[in-house]
This record gives sequence, C-alpha cells and structure tokens, in this order.
Amino acid sequence: MAASAGPEIERLIGLLSKLPGLGPRSARRAALALLKRREQLLLPLAASLAETADKVKSCSICGAPDTRDPCTLCADPARDAGLICVVEEAGALWAMERSGAFRGRYHVLGGLLSALDGVGPESLRLGELVARVGEGGVREVVLALPATVDGQTTAHYIAERLANAGVSVTSLARGVPVGGDLDWLDDGTIIQAMRARRPT
Amino acid sequence: MAASAGPEIERLIGLLSKLPGLGPRSARRAALALLKRREQLLLPLAASLAETADKVKSCSICGAPDTRDPCTLCADPARDAGLICVVEEAGALWAMERSGAFRGRYHVLGGLLSALDGVGPESLRLGELVARVGEGGVREVVLALPATVDGQTTAHYIAERLANAGVSVTSLARGVPVGGDLDWLDDGTIIQAMRARRPT
Repeated sequence: MAASAGPEIERLIGLLSKLPGLGPRSARRAALALLKRREQLLLPLAASLAETADKVKSCSICGAPDTRDPCTLCADPARDAGLICVVEEAGALWAMERSGAFRGRYHVLGGLLSALDGVGPESLRLGELVARVGEGGVREVVLALPATVDGQTTAHYIAERLANAGVSVTSLARGVPVGGDLDWLDDGTIIQAMRARRPT
Repeated sequence: MAASAGPEIERLIGLLSKLPGLGPRSARRAALALLKRREQLLLPLAASLAETADKVKSCSICGAPDTRDPCTLCADPARDAGLICVVEEAGALWAMERSGAFRGRYHVLGGLLSALDGVGPESLRLGELVARVGEGGVREVVLALPATVDGQTTAHYIAERLANAGVSVTSLARGVPVGGDLDWLDDGTIIQAMRARRPT
C-alpha cells in the first residue's frame, strides 16, 4: 500500500478498495485522482456521501432507497398499484426502470434465500410482501429474480407463500437475449429458449 | 441513470463514475453497495474523504501528498538526501516505495510536458526541482518517467536544465520485464533490451 503517504490516505485506499469494481490497485488510482482533483471531485464526493448518509432511507412500503418515504415510485399515482414487481436489490429496480418496460410498483427483497449463506425468509422483506398483497388491490406479482439457484429457490418460496392470496404470480421470460449469439449462450438458456419457443 | 431514486443518489453515481476504473454501470453498483453497507462503508468513506480533504496537503519540498509538511519521506533522516528520484505522480512514487528499490528522496512533477495537451514547464514542479538541486548536496537525479513520448520529452528537458548543475542525471533501465514473454512484448522494448544487453 502507500506506507509513505500517511494513515489517512491508506485508510481512504482501504475503503475505496471495498467498493465493487475497485481492487487494491484501482483503489490507489482512485485515491490519487481524488487527491489531484480536490475541488472538482474530492470535496463534492465527500459532501455527496454525507448527504446520502443523512437523507437517503429505505422506503417503508417497497424497500427502495430514496430521500422520500414513501419513495418517488410508491408515491406516484400514475403507476399501477395492482402490479408489484419483486426484485433482489435496488440495482435490478433501476435496470427495470431504465428499460421502461414496467409501470407498476416494486418490492425490494434485500437479498435472496440461500441455504449456503444462511439467509432465511426472516432476513428478507418477504413478510412485508405477503402483507402488501394481503391488503388487497394487487392483481399480479411479477418475480424479476436472477436465473440462479438462489433466485429460483426464492421465486418458488414466494409463489408458495402467495398461492392462496388470490393473485397471479409470474416470472420474467427466459430466452435468447437481444443481440445474443447462440454460439456464446450457455446450454441452460438455449434449452429454456427452445422449450418456450413461439410462432414468429 | 437512477431517475427513480432521487437527485442525491444520481449525483453520487455521477461523482463515483468520474473515478478512474469506474464507469456509469460500476458506479451504480458502487452506489448500491454504499447504500447497503451504510455503517461499514458509506459513513466511514464519507468521514475518510472529509478527513483527507482537510488534512492531506502537498509536501512543500517534493510535492507528494501527505498530512505532514515536509512529508514523511522528506522528513526521514535515514533516507539519502543526495539522491532524488523524479516521478510524474504520487502513484509512481508509491509503486517505487512498494518495490523497496530506492532509499533516496523524491520529486513529484505533477504531470509531464505535452505539446498536444498544452502543458509547458511552468505548469510542472520543474523550477522547484532545479532549485532543490541548486541548493547543493544532491549527487544524482534519477528520472523514473514513463517510456512514452511525453515522458521522454520531459526527461530530455530535465537533463538539459540540469546539464550544468554538477549532478549526474540517470534514467530507469529499459528492457524485458520480469516474467515478460518475448511473444507479448512490443518491438520497441525488444530493440531497447537487445541494445542494452549484458553478460549473464
């Protein structure tokens, strides 16, 4: 590390290297960029982090991070409250919003069920989801969970919990991604795409 | 971006994406990690940046960032003050320190001469270097500058400015890097390594 630069910079590099996408080497480069661009980058980022820590909370309805509670999406009367899209994390919610494919409400689980990592239903916002559906007015719960073992375990668990709730539970379609070359696709995706083939 | 998450998070993502190594996509992931790990990451990083902005200055002798002035390295009596290693940025200084190959002092230029980018001698800490050498006690100036056009232009400029200063001006050796496979090396390196060949 930067044993020559004093403990403050070492500490900064250590914290930066905990961000996803930054390793020890790129964390040093990032720290250097911050030191070089004090006015344009270091001070604004310090202020932005402090403001985020101060103002951003989890929405008490859907669990998404926002400065408002209920969040911007839950408070938007133009969005269909009869549709709830269940996502693992806010990152998936943002991706869905960028796509513009969904105009309902969300529910952020805060993780996935995982026997390996010891994540049980009580660690996730599953009770809140069941309670939301129980309040009525919901027609459909769309599961937008990853196509992994944990994602599918969680999807099945939710489908069971909501089996008698009088809502339809659906999942995002699986298939060949747009621009996806079959050469590069895994077998699992090809098998699912073949099974779910449709008239063109 | 995260149009659904409020302006504070969008601003944070925008600032994070300016860090080297983070693009718009990984900046979103980083922001998400910060929001998820408020106590372990968001608050400590905010505090660390504020502390860095508050305490870290450039050393008035060598230009390296440190909380002390003169910096830890310039203040260390165990380091040879007769040797000055000239580097572009603190990143190169840290790399040199990690290698343990150098026990002298440093001089951080803060950039390289570049006709294209309009960087002239007055934008760099070149006058300070000449003044340091002029004060006497320096035997050798080692140029540890990149093997690029700008790096070599800067090296030649420094060698000229110090031509009559009574110090020897040297450069890091060029050659095959340790573990370097000739197949993957550029021609320029191979040519330099061949010219500088030595008895084994």
